[in-house]
Amino acid sequence: MSFNTFGHVFRVTTWGESHGPALGCTVDGCPPGVPLTEADIQPWLDKRRPGLNKNTTQRQEPDQVRILSGVFEGMTTGTPIQLMIENTDQRSKDYGKIAQSFRPGHADITYHQKYGIRDYRGGGRSSARETAARVAAGGVARAVLARMVPGLSILGYMTQMGVKHIDRSRFDAAEVARNDFFVPDAAVVDEWADYLHHIRTVAHASVGAVIEVVATGVPAGLGAPIYGKLDSDLASAMMSINAVKAVEIGDGMAVAALTGIENADEIVMGPDGPEFLSNHAGGILGGISTGQPVVVRFAVKPTSSILTARRSIDTAGAEVDVVTTGRHDPCVGIRAVPVGEAMMACVLLDHLLLDRAQTGGVRGTIG
Amino acid sequence: MSFNTFGHVFRVTTWGESHGPALGCTVDGCPPGVPLTEADIQPWLDKRRPGLNKNTTQRQEPDQVRILSGVFEGMTTGTPIQLMIENTDQRSKDYGKIAQSFRPGHADITYHQKYGIRDYRGGGRSSARETAARVAAGGVARAVLARMVPGLSILGYMTQMGVKHIDRSRFDAAEVARNDFFVPDAAVVDEWADYLHHIRTVAHASVGAVIEVVATGVPAGLGAPIYGKLDSDLASAMMSINAVKAVEIGDGMAVAALTGIENADEIVMGPDGPEFLSNHAGGILGGISTGQPVVVRFAVKPTSSILTARRSIDTAGAEVDVVTTGRHDPCVGIRAVPVGEAMMACVLLDHLLLDRAQTGGVRGTIG
Amino acid sequence: MSFNTFGHVFRVTTWGESHGPALGCTVDGCPPGVPLTEADIQPWLDKRRPGLNKNTTQRQEPDQVRILSGVFEGMTTGTPIQLMIENTDQRSKDYGKIAQSFRPGHADITYHQKYGIRDYRGGGRSSARETAARVAAGGVARAVLARMVPGLSILGYMTQMGVKHIDRSRFDAAEVARNDFFVPDAAVVDEWADYLHHIRTVAHASVGAVIEVVATGVPAGLGAPIYGKLDSDLASAMMSINAVKAVEIGDGMAVAALTGIENADEIVMGPDGPEFLSNHAGGILGGISTGQPVVVRFAVKPTSSILTARRSIDTAGAEVDVVTTGRHDPCVGIRAVPVGEAMMACVLLDHLLLDRAQTGGVRGTIG
Amino acid sequence: MSFNTFGHVFRVTTWGESHGPALGCTVDGCPPGVPLTEADIQPWLDKRRPGLNKNTTQRQEPDQVRILSGVFEGMTTGTPIQLMIENTDQRSKDYGKIAQSFRPGHADITYHQKYGIRDYRGGGRSSARETAARVAAGGVARAVLARMVPGLSILGYMTQMGVKHIDRSRFDAAEVARNDFFVPDAAVVDEWADYLHHIRTVAHASVGAVIEVVATGVPAGLGAPIYGKLDSDLASAMMSINAVKAVEIGDGMAVAALTGIENADEIVMGPDGPEFLSNHAGGILGGISTGQPVVVRFAVKPTSSILTARRSIDTAGAEVDVVTTGRHDPCVGIRAVPVGEAMMACVLLDHLLLDRAQTGGVRGTIG
Repeated sequence: MSFNTFGHVFRVTTWGESHGPALGCTVDGCPPGVPLTEADIQPWLDKRRPGLNKNTTQRQEPDQVRILSGVFEGMTTGTPIQLMIENTDQRSKDYGKIAQSFRPGHADITYHQKYGIRDYRGGGRSSARETAARVAAGGVARAVLARMVPGLSILGYMTQMGVKHIDRSRFDAAEVARNDFFVPDAAVVDEWADYLHHIRTVAHASVGAVIEVVATGVPAGLGAPIYGKLDSDLASAMMSINAVKAVEIGDGMAVAALTGIENADEIVMGPDGPEFLSNHAGGILGGISTGQPVVVRFAVKPTSSILTARRSIDTAGAEVDVVTTGRHDPCVGIRAVPVGEAMMACVLLDHLLLDRAQTGGVRGTIG
Repeated sequence: MSFNTFGHVFRVTTWGESHGPALGCTVDGCPPGVPLTEADIQPWLDKRRPGLNKNTTQRQEPDQVRILSGVFEGMTTGTPIQLMIENTDQRSKDYGKIAQSFRPGHADITYHQKYGIRDYRGGGRSSARETAARVAAGGVARAVLARMVPGLSILGYMTQMGVKHIDRSRFDAAEVARNDFFVPDAAVVDEWADYLHHIRTVAHASVGAVIEVVATGVPAGLGAPIYGKLDSDLASAMMSINAVKAVEIGDGMAVAALTGIENADEIVMGPDGPEFLSNHAGGILGGISTGQPVVVRFAVKPTSSILTARRSIDTAGAEVDVVTTGRHDPCVGIRAVPVGEAMMACVLLDHLLLDRAQTGGVRGTIG
Repeated sequence: MSFNTFGHVFRVTTWGESHGPALGCTVDGCPPGVPLTEADIQPWLDKRRPGLNKNTTQRQEPDQVRILSGVFEGMTTGTPIQLMIENTDQRSKDYGKIAQSFRPGHADITYHQKYGIRDYRGGGRSSARETAARVAAGGVARAVLARMVPGLSILGYMTQMGVKHIDRSRFDAAEVARNDFFVPDAAVVDEWADYLHHIRTVAHASVGAVIEVVATGVPAGLGAPIYGKLDSDLASAMMSINAVKAVEIGDGMAVAALTGIENADEIVMGPDGPEFLSNHAGGILGGISTGQPVVVRFAVKPTSSILTARRSIDTAGAEVDVVTTGRHDPCVGIRAVPVGEAMMACVLLDHLLLDRAQTGGVRGTIG
Repeated sequence: MSFNTFGHVFRVTTWGESHGPALGCTVDGCPPGVPLTEADIQPWLDKRRPGLNKNTTQRQEPDQVRILSGVFEGMTTGTPIQLMIENTDQRSKDYGKIAQSFRPGHADITYHQKYGIRDYRGGGRSSARETAARVAAGGVARAVLARMVPGLSILGYMTQMGVKHIDRSRFDAAEVARNDFFVPDAAVVDEWADYLHHIRTVAHASVGAVIEVVATGVPAGLGAPIYGKLDSDLASAMMSINAVKAVEIGDGMAVAALTGIENADEIVMGPDGPEFLSNHAGGILGGISTGQPVVVRFAVKPTSSILTARRSIDTAGAEVDVVTTGRHDPCVGIRAVPVGEAMMACVLLDHLLLDRAQTGGVRGTIG
């Protein structure tokens, strides 16, 4: 049963609405004895934070995380870790006027239909603010992974925004941290900025995006077939992020057009064990990690809240034109980058712990 | 914790290996009082069955399902339903010669690494035979759905095989049941047959595919945000099918290139409630069904077992060339069609039951 | 997987330590549309609160609950409800001197052994303060039950304290709220007060207790056999309360000495359906409620923290004498009464929701 | 969500009815690489088997277990283990005449009320035959425990039958396997046999029993507070056994009458670590094992099916007298002994695996 919890062993339950007093998450199942302070978590929240970046919503939130439990004298104790972020910039009057209307493309109408009641302020529970709690949990996961698998690293970046793509021949991981779009291709930054400016200010629209998250240094053997497969859990995790409509592993949709000859990642014996000559599989075979980089890609739809009027109805069934003013990202995909990284961190740690439950972390030998 | 079980309320645990004495599944949480006999399940297994179709593996299995529990005098009792399918065509000697080698693109190596032991006969647990158990469970789910939501229907079909695509302007749902490829476009059948014949007999290869599964008549309000979203669970379910590498909801990866103006499914008030003027969202907003058709698409990679030699290693670490003779589908995607339908049925029923746990199935009114 | 969460549908995850900044719980799966404010929860916390009662610890905590999420304009929304109670009276220096010693009968040593680290201030996570979060969750459960099953009521009381027993012939439910011991027998109050005073001040000891919790108006049909039986879940819930060492349903341990003739609760047909002529079963048959009162009893061991020295060791393995000064209940069983009621409320609501998942709440008819 | 599954990591799902074609269980999460054949499981089933013992039901079932999956070449593979036991002695006509009546003390009426339908043959799902599947699962758990914790041993025995008690001063573990009552006190065997003979043939009744199960060699540190405590899970496991009405850990109900001075198990430093001078706690503190023997006791009510007429009703609401002829144990508690052992084995293994998920099995050091 899972409403607001994800994970098998490292279990994260998020709570909170966009305009409530606070939001956060309970992280249960965290191993004990791991150094952890707010300073380990805050940088990831800062990366996701709106208002730092002119391309994201201008809502100003410090998004300051507090650890309320589960840590003693700077170390995790194995008991539940409660992380709380207070909402300080709530300005709910911005949203009041559309309280009874359903924004096309938004979850307003489905929350209303399912629950018969919803917190309409800023999207309530369906707001992208919920992802702040995921990023905080991801900070905990990264701290634990850093202890358990020192060589593991996770990097997310945009590969597409609207009709613009990166050029993979110019791929530079170091570039990702240097620009507002988290793109690994310095040459596109100015062009994308102009494009997004136009989308927002001239077209009164928004655009979608594709995010790729790659984890390197992942040990072979993670994943619990058949229904806790690593790729199955990654798909679930990424699809649960607001506005995500597709998830790909490795070559993703493109595998359909490949032949079995092309798609086979050939294997040779390297000095430290098996090596693969390609990675169409995205580091996962049969739901279990191969030791190659784990590659996940997901598509984020354009922000639903736009300045162009769209036809809709209100709770009384009357037809209305909806225009959403206020602070909204013209491309929510940008802030989905740290969220995707956080989900990757949580899923990998979860499977590391789950695997040692069943196998003790002992691996079959080759050679 | 989930190794071999999926579902929140309608919980399916599959068990069994390709060449063991039997395989099957336990279906727990099924509502009582639903008429159910083997005859309700068998047709779906027959549809998936290898050997009926010259484009699929020539392995001959009657795949006869037996209900061992949970049904009394032709009605479900609310207790666990055990479904067993005996493996009658095991011919394990076919596989003996590759017992110690790892087939590129196959889960051989990851099962070995994770567990240190594997049943190498026919892929063991990682064989696509496991999906027979899913199809059986899907038969139960369909029988229950037929009682609970009479207007609901589920249809799966191929939209792409290798480099060949259907022409959606010729879409004809009735055609799907009439051809070996489950394609809704009669005009492509001969061409696809020639293409696949060439792939297998001349190219000694295999090809991937794209499957689309559409459910119509799904009530609004199904889905348990944030981590039991309907799309998140569908993504997990489809990604857990052997060889699937990508899952799309509605417009899928294509949403990245849309603007918010294009992507917004506008809403008007129809005689029976809200109506949408388009369905980019694939029937799901904020993880909750809208009442529109639920549209899921997934990509299946080409079969790993091919007649063309690929480089690999064996358990001793020696480099080997692997050629897989024996009975293998040149396009496993074909048989993934009934499997995708079964997963859709299971997920929808599960969410129908889960929803009535929390909300009692009562819906918010509009108008 | 369950570390700090209980419940199938109505899921409560508690967090927090005795001397951390706050503790609380996330309540997930709560039905939407139920009126709820802090005023619905606070009275139950006040009932459990230490310091109100001269027989319980003199720690002074207002135990003020705050609802941080899941409620909008005074109604539950179906999203997670976060309840937080700040710890205001932490005085951790009281506990400093025994930080490295293990109190006999206390979880100090096992937390140390399991986790290698523990928050030794006031018992940390193993403190009975955790039960404040349960009582808060129970307040939510009661508010929902009041809407869904208007006639249901829950009453807990002490039936034994140390060597003292109530006289059931004088049973008066109205008396429970009128005395400090939650006893339904006014005649024992003074005697018990003297006895407890002696135990604490003269014997420098503490005593155990037996608590009985009875729910009336419980509909027939709740309970999910075989491993989510109502009695099995009640046993788990009550045994999870600090210091509880035994749980009985109905006649409990005494059934061993009964014959099948005596134990059979005979059934007759009453005006509103089946009626039972006795209730040895405690309202549960085959793990499913019968419609009779659900009767649970549990034994609480004496407080481990006492003024009499006991032999023990410290973390260095040195033998020490442990005397626990500070604020401790001489009978923790007293405060276990509202905790037991809260667990009953949570379990019953959980099964009400779980049942409607599987059966839709429809009952088999008799007559 | 748990209908017919127990366990966090080592997950057992039982299925099957008394008079269906077969019953069994799926064991998921079992570690790989453990030697396992049917011969490891069968002896435990033989111990529980009815008909071997003149004091138990005369139903004749070979209860032959078959492993259908999850084991390859005599070793567990880490994939689900399906265990099936065919029902060969179904004689359902014995039960036909009471199909529409509700036996007092039996789950007939509650299954009818909950599900609106039940398999009335032999109690259907609520029959004690379900426990055969538990015993089979316990056999797997024991095989794994034997590898992982070589010194661990589990012994169950009766301490009370009806009004008869063992004399603990004559306790002899070796005696348990030598008599039909699984009693550790040879001196009572003849007396108990006469007593039970009288109960059945003269009194036309049945009697209850108390079973004690002790596990020695359990490592310290098992148990997942707060809601996966070792004692909480043991309480749930034992209470889920048919006819069990109470569960005690260590001193159980008797702790209520103890003082804190008496109840404190004092600790000294032994050559191999901490040693306790007594074991009132039954080997569990704060829900975590101490390393002392884990002691669980449970009470089983008298068999409901008796030859003496009791008042009841039928499905039409008519009042009837119920006399149950046929093959029934006069004391179901006898066969509950191997069932209790099996549950102990499953819970301990489950917690061993769960613990290594969170802590890696690393223990805090003392001294």
